Amino acid sequence: MERVLADCRSRIGFDLLGNTWNPVVLYALAEGPRRPRELRTEIGGISAKVLTETLRRLEGYALVERRTYAPPSPRVEYALSELGRSFLEPIRALGRWSAEYGDAFVAAQRWDEG
Amino acid sequence: MERVLADCRSRIGFDLLGNTWNPVVLYALAEGPRRPRELRTEIGGISAKVLTETLRRLEGYALVERRTYAPPSPRVEYALSELGRSFLEPIRALGRWSAEYGDAFVAAQRWDEG
Repeated sequence: MERVLADCRSRIGFDLLGNTWNPVVLYALAEGPRRPRELRTEIGGISAKVLTETLRRLEGYALVERRTYAPPSPRVEYALSELGRSFLEPIRALGRWSAEYGDAFVAAQRWDEG
Repeated sequence: MERVLADCRSRIGFDLLGNTWNPVVLYALAEGPRRPRELRTEIGGISAKVLTETLRRLEGYALVERRTYAPPSPRVEYALSELGRSFLEPIRALGRWSAEYGDAFVAAQRWDEG
């Protein structure tokens, strides 16, 4: 495999993770469509403003779809697009690494040796 | 699995990718120890200053080891630690996603519709 390391297509996945809340919101939609209010409850520590910005950004990336429903039960929901669902795999790979190696990583940090 | 989404251990992997050059330098060390000069050649677009900062940061994270060799062949090399090598898996998962879905992602972008 030709080793292309910087300034190229392989950066897209990494750039998407450049924003802290992108993977968090995508992961929160993994189990199905959610209303903004439900997302805020499920995601600890995200403000309404940041959630709105993140959803709009992810919609612009075509990773999330916004669905509006008319009466009798008018509401707005957000759901993963197919492309968004495909991005759960690297997000989960990072989550697995963090779960498996997080403690070893923290223990190995040399900066707190004063 | 208890769904903990923000401000917790699962953020470590994501935070490591918050810096653009961390995964690039780690990936460049995947095939063995390298001297700084070799890394600069292999990684397109990284300055000596940024490479030095990145290597120092990754060393502080215990993801990279700095090895110095005495005469008859004095040199400095950098290599992945075991922890660093373990982080190649999520980096590769992101690379695979970007390679497989990068074109679809770019094609789906709605912001260039004016």
